[in-house]
Amino acid sequence: MNTFGNIFRLTTFGESHGAAIGGVIDGCPEGITLDLDFIQSELDRRRPGQSRLTTARKEGDRVELLSGVLKSPTNNGALQTTGTPIGFIVRNENQHSSDYDDLRDIFRPSHADYTYFIKYGLRDHRGGGRSSARETISRVVGGAIAKLCLRQLGIDVKAWTAQVGNIACDRDWTKLNLSQIESNAVRCPDTAIAQQMEDLILQVKSEGDTIGGIIAGVITGCPAGLGEPVFGKLHAQLGAAMLSINAVKGFEYGEGFAGVEQRGSEQNDVFVSASRRKAETKTNHSGGIQGGISNGQPIFFRIAFKPVATLLQPQETIDIHGNAVTSHPRGRHDPCVLPRAVPIVEAMAAMTILDAYLINQTIHLHALDASSVVEK
Amino acid sequence: MNTFGNIFRLTTFGESHGAAIGGVIDGCPEGITLDLDFIQSELDRRRPGQSRLTTARKEGDRVELLSGVLKSPTNNGALQTTGTPIGFIVRNENQHSSDYDDLRDIFRPSHADYTYFIKYGLRDHRGGGRSSARETISRVVGGAIAKLCLRQLGIDVKAWTAQVGNIACDRDWTKLNLSQIESNAVRCPDTAIAQQMEDLILQVKSEGDTIGGIIAGVITGCPAGLGEPVFGKLHAQLGAAMLSINAVKGFEYGEGFAGVEQRGSEQNDVFVSASRRKAETKTNHSGGIQGGISNGQPIFFRIAFKPVATLLQPQETIDIHGNAVTSHPRGRHDPCVLPRAVPIVEAMAAMTILDAYLINQTIHLHALDASSVVEK
Amino acid sequence: MNTFGNIFRLTTFGESHGAAIGGVIDGCPEGITLDLDFIQSELDRRRPGQSRLTTARKEGDRVELLSGVLKSPTNNGALQTTGTPIGFIVRNENQHSSDYDDLRDIFRPSHADYTYFIKYGLRDHRGGGRSSARETISRVVGGAIAKLCLRQLGIDVKAWTAQVGNIACDRDWTKLNLSQIESNAVRCPDTAIAQQMEDLILQVKSEGDTIGGIIAGVITGCPAGLGEPVFGKLHAQLGAAMLSINAVKGFEYGEGFAGVEQRGSEQNDVFVSASRRKAETKTNHSGGIQGGISNGQPIFFRIAFKPVATLLQPQETIDIHGNAVTSHPRGRHDPCVLPRAVPIVEAMAAMTILDAYLINQTIHLHALDASSVVEK
Amino acid sequence: MNTFGNIFRLTTFGESHGAAIGGVIDGCPEGITLDLDFIQSELDRRRPGQSRLTTARKEGDRVELLSGVLKSPTNNGALQTTGTPIGFIVRNENQHSSDYDDLRDIFRPSHADYTYFIKYGLRDHRGGGRSSARETISRVVGGAIAKLCLRQLGIDVKAWTAQVGNIACDRDWTKLNLSQIESNAVRCPDTAIAQQMEDLILQVKSEGDTIGGIIAGVITGCPAGLGEPVFGKLHAQLGAAMLSINAVKGFEYGEGFAGVEQRGSEQNDVFVSASRRKAETKTNHSGGIQGGISNGQPIFFRIAFKPVATLLQPQETIDIHGNAVTSHPRGRHDPCVLPRAVPIVEAMAAMTILDAYLINQTIHLHALDASSVVEK
Repeated sequence: MNTFGNIFRLTTFGESHGAAIGGVIDGCPEGITLDLDFIQSELDRRRPGQSRLTTARKEGDRVELLSGVLKSPTNNGALQTTGTPIGFIVRNENQHSSDYDDLRDIFRPSHADYTYFIKYGLRDHRGGGRSSARETISRVVGGAIAKLCLRQLGIDVKAWTAQVGNIACDRDWTKLNLSQIESNAVRCPDTAIAQQMEDLILQVKSEGDTIGGIIAGVITGCPAGLGEPVFGKLHAQLGAAMLSINAVKGFEYGEGFAGVEQRGSEQNDVFVSASRRKAETKTNHSGGIQGGISNGQPIFFRIAFKPVATLLQPQETIDIHGNAVTSHPRGRHDPCVLPRAVPIVEAMAAMTILDAYLINQTIHLHALDASSVVEK
Repeated sequence: MNTFGNIFRLTTFGESHGAAIGGVIDGCPEGITLDLDFIQSELDRRRPGQSRLTTARKEGDRVELLSGVLKSPTNNGALQTTGTPIGFIVRNENQHSSDYDDLRDIFRPSHADYTYFIKYGLRDHRGGGRSSARETISRVVGGAIAKLCLRQLGIDVKAWTAQVGNIACDRDWTKLNLSQIESNAVRCPDTAIAQQMEDLILQVKSEGDTIGGIIAGVITGCPAGLGEPVFGKLHAQLGAAMLSINAVKGFEYGEGFAGVEQRGSEQNDVFVSASRRKAETKTNHSGGIQGGISNGQPIFFRIAFKPVATLLQPQETIDIHGNAVTSHPRGRHDPCVLPRAVPIVEAMAAMTILDAYLINQTIHLHALDASSVVEK
Repeated sequence: MNTFGNIFRLTTFGESHGAAIGGVIDGCPEGITLDLDFIQSELDRRRPGQSRLTTARKEGDRVELLSGVLKSPTNNGALQTTGTPIGFIVRNENQHSSDYDDLRDIFRPSHADYTYFIKYGLRDHRGGGRSSARETISRVVGGAIAKLCLRQLGIDVKAWTAQVGNIACDRDWTKLNLSQIESNAVRCPDTAIAQQMEDLILQVKSEGDTIGGIIAGVITGCPAGLGEPVFGKLHAQLGAAMLSINAVKGFEYGEGFAGVEQRGSEQNDVFVSASRRKAETKTNHSGGIQGGISNGQPIFFRIAFKPVATLLQPQETIDIHGNAVTSHPRGRHDPCVLPRAVPIVEAMAAMTILDAYLINQTIHLHALDASSVVEK
Repeated sequence: MNTFGNIFRLTTFGESHGAAIGGVIDGCPEGITLDLDFIQSELDRRRPGQSRLTTARKEGDRVELLSGVLKSPTNNGALQTTGTPIGFIVRNENQHSSDYDDLRDIFRPSHADYTYFIKYGLRDHRGGGRSSARETISRVVGGAIAKLCLRQLGIDVKAWTAQVGNIACDRDWTKLNLSQIESNAVRCPDTAIAQQMEDLILQVKSEGDTIGGIIAGVITGCPAGLGEPVFGKLHAQLGAAMLSINAVKGFEYGEGFAGVEQRGSEQNDVFVSASRRKAETKTNHSGGIQGGISNGQPIFFRIAFKPVATLLQPQETIDIHGNAVTSHPRGRHDPCVLPRAVPIVEAMAAMTILDAYLINQTIHLHALDASSVVEK
């Protein structure tokens, strides 16, 4: 259950305060040029300590690829995937385990401490163990490699902070300037709204509190036909991917929850002819997916994040013996996870789409022409 | 991709206008007494023609179990599961295929016609083919059997219509009388609100239009410890299950989307000691799941349904040649799918929980005592 | 665990004396023309009562396809696969359950009675229940459809009875006339040897005893490149497929067990150039697979079948209470399963190769050209 | 396809001349004490350079566990599994890549060079890349951990070299002294035969040639009831596991291929009563498995290994341009792989049995008693 995907499969391992975080990517197509700087830059977007909005922890988070790649003999020595599994690790450094000594026997409210303890009969008190968001490092590595594959297909994945607390940018993504996402620390494409979000986060932080929000995402350039009915509907796979991210409490696509108040005559997307055998829709209330299969329009989705559970203020709780105690968390924590969660959302979306793309390659029977395969 | 689950696995087949709908349930524990009347009553809850709110189509939808069961030698001949796969079929009857003749070459707006056509290169124009909601018959059969298993464990699954258009009952399920769900045609536990919902649906129907809504669900009696981190988080599996149901556009659990405006200090659930080695929470903002693992509190979730795409009014669209045409749907269709979707939601929830329960049995190493196994 | 395959997936259900045997084929490519007569003819090859060598039971074994197919609008109404799951059933008829009444509480030697009882805590005494070879009906249906797919690719699968007791035909299949396989009741391509095998089987039958043997198979036209290292090696998948057939005790390919006495210098296959970027081997000791991947040469394998356990003579055993009893089997049973197992071996081989072919389509990233997809 | 198992799942990565070999073990039960010395000792049994029979390469092969373990607070700080995935790596050292420079463009006979090249369109010429037997390091790590689990259940797995070329020890394992397996370099329990095997291997080595053989294995203490009909038969899973090991050409269990000449009356195993609700068999021709399910008797199997393809003598072949060339392998290679393959066979058997054991825990519905779970 630590594996994601059907064909392009990411298996992850690692705890926050263990020796390393890492994973194995199986099923990556061969011959993909891997831009290591790009992979590292994606990790840097997720890294703590980027701005005053995030935890002050400094983590280098340097990824080391251990297998599945080879220097191309023809392409200036660029790294290429070989089709065999890509193993990778990121060493854990600078972990202040002692910050957590006080928590050894305490169940922090709304954390996974209690549920892991009940499930496994033991606990790793050091910073959340396996349930720590550090696990998402492996997802960002997998997602970066998936993005490099999708780039060859003209498919692009973008996510942004759409709401923090009650401050939201326009829901209609076509009215946003997505090129501005990385222009500010909260990763909101509306820079005026971004400033308000930033102010709110700093205020919440000053109170030792935390705040939730919404990340939105859009996938463009996705061809029609991806997604596997009936249980493998594209949005069901996308939803499962997003709901597996720490602190996520909801997923919607297209008109989502807001659309339940509409009539069918309002929400239906009328088809118009685009080109030979290709249709477009006048509107995109469907969010790019119909009957669980992409229809060629942009895929639009939104994800609800709860306020993170770690507060820098005292909280009542109990210890493993059932005694009432007060928790006094220390350490360095984010008052709002959304800015750093944006690359994680993109990573999960990229892996989901690539996996759907690859599995879709199996529904037609192609005559394999061996001679054409070995051209490179 | 027509299989749901990891241990308790449902594989389904069938199109709306083919010979039969059916499936195979693999991994059902042995020795479960199957109450055929209960299974059929669950199908009856899903069946069209139950009330004036639903399509007038009459479908008998009688299930036939073909394998995996045996009359108990000791229990008055009651049917018991044997641990081998349970095959079942429901014959399609009374299908007015001719209702769909006009649609042979037309892509109905916001249906799966176009996406299936692009994906598979052909189409089954008769009533939606595989994308028809008739496929959910198989889910209800699987869910009914899962419910019979869960009943032995004291786990109960209930769903209800929580909102139709802009008419909603109380979000706090503890304030609802869930015993009233089946007392009215819309399956809303608040009977006064139910009447308003019914009025709205009939009004929409009279306009040849359709309307969306929200179904809520709660799972009680679920022990702590279910769910598999990191990609198999319990709510990720539950979300994928719900998002695979036709017309679903969103899933949330606990405080969901509404909770993004809250602070951590508001949303955290404080632990209190219940009994030896067992904790409870004062509040349940988490919705019964923390870190992807059930914490023993009720699991609460909500699902957004769009208004169904089939309108009984003309709509602009195109045909497979790209020509602009007007679609004139006929036949018998639901103006609002929610009343009939309630048992489908319950079925998917029941299968998800049972599957999580069974996989959880593998995380500890039990010494198998063969002699104790064969007591029955 | 009642599912076979990764992309082309067969899920089966059914007991020998239940209502029906059947299954679901998921992942069959769309647009394959299904020749129903061919599918039925494959079932007829497996059917009891074909000759005096097999049980006298008469089973019609008529297959009914319930979904996943549509009459082609262009191809004379021929049935075509739609890409959705193909459900099918074969009704059980003419089952003399009363033949088994004496066996209700008895563990027949070397049958699955005892192991099923210990595993599931109950037993279906009627003819073996799920462990009956009747389950292989579903495999033959799946295999027939796989063969129709492979035919489009120029891949052919043939199996034959290579040995019965100590009577064997030539191990070198290139010296056999495979067109003679169906010319005799034992399905041995060497008609003189076939006669000796037939005599031996009839003699064994007259003694109320049974006899084992070897089935050999060859897959021709298979392109190089199929098989997934490291755990999904092509021969590992083929071996698992064969070992899942009732009464199979061994699997080997290429030189197999006999080759362990050879030196590397004897067994290595020297490469010669065939055409641009394509190699052939002077010899084929490897059996068409190197490093777990097909090399374009014929794939050759052999399977050991034990003598079936059901004897028409008294045998000592115990009952479920541990009492020593004597078993007196009645009913109609094969003295040698090999003639009827030939189509089952072919079916499993065909599904394995098709599945490997489809998964191999995912290792390269193809730009999906939607317009080309919908040509048909 | 680089993942083995259903519940206890090993995913591996790594090429012979890359940075590291490693893997992830998912689904290992929690609370298992990991004896690191034992794990390393298993790797040492597989390591090259153990004796004059094996390659002179010196590989340290030190395993580093990266996650999934925690020092026990109560058990003298022993490492315990936590139930989360165990990531591990073994660094590659001392790799003489330059030994392979001459082979850059050459397809070595009966190696995987050609098939990998055709499949992936590129090749890693350095020592076989992913197809190298170095990949089995990860299997030995996984198998060692599986053995530690099985030890708690009283299940033991042993393998030995049963035949080299035409020199074989007794097929009846009950006549062998298995405590002598590790007493000699070939790992044959019959020390007199072992000496003859050693002489043969050294003679073959002196000729620059290689030789095949048979490894036998036995699993004792395995309870009745393991194995999942119909496609997951225990011997089918065991066979697939063994066939996935490099150079394996065949698998048989019980009487295997030799048994095809027997009559049913000779090969059937008569049941006798052992104790309440438990049966034994007078003989064990079945090899401990009936109907795909373990029957409580020892599980006995044999595996055929071909002579390895790398000869230290010139061989004709072609290069990637289709030109005829002569291959002159250098480097350090084993003349016979069997002695070092013994621990690999054991590892695959141990993982197969543990996986079957864990999945068997799901067929009964146990009432989960949370309080009992957290006793430790």
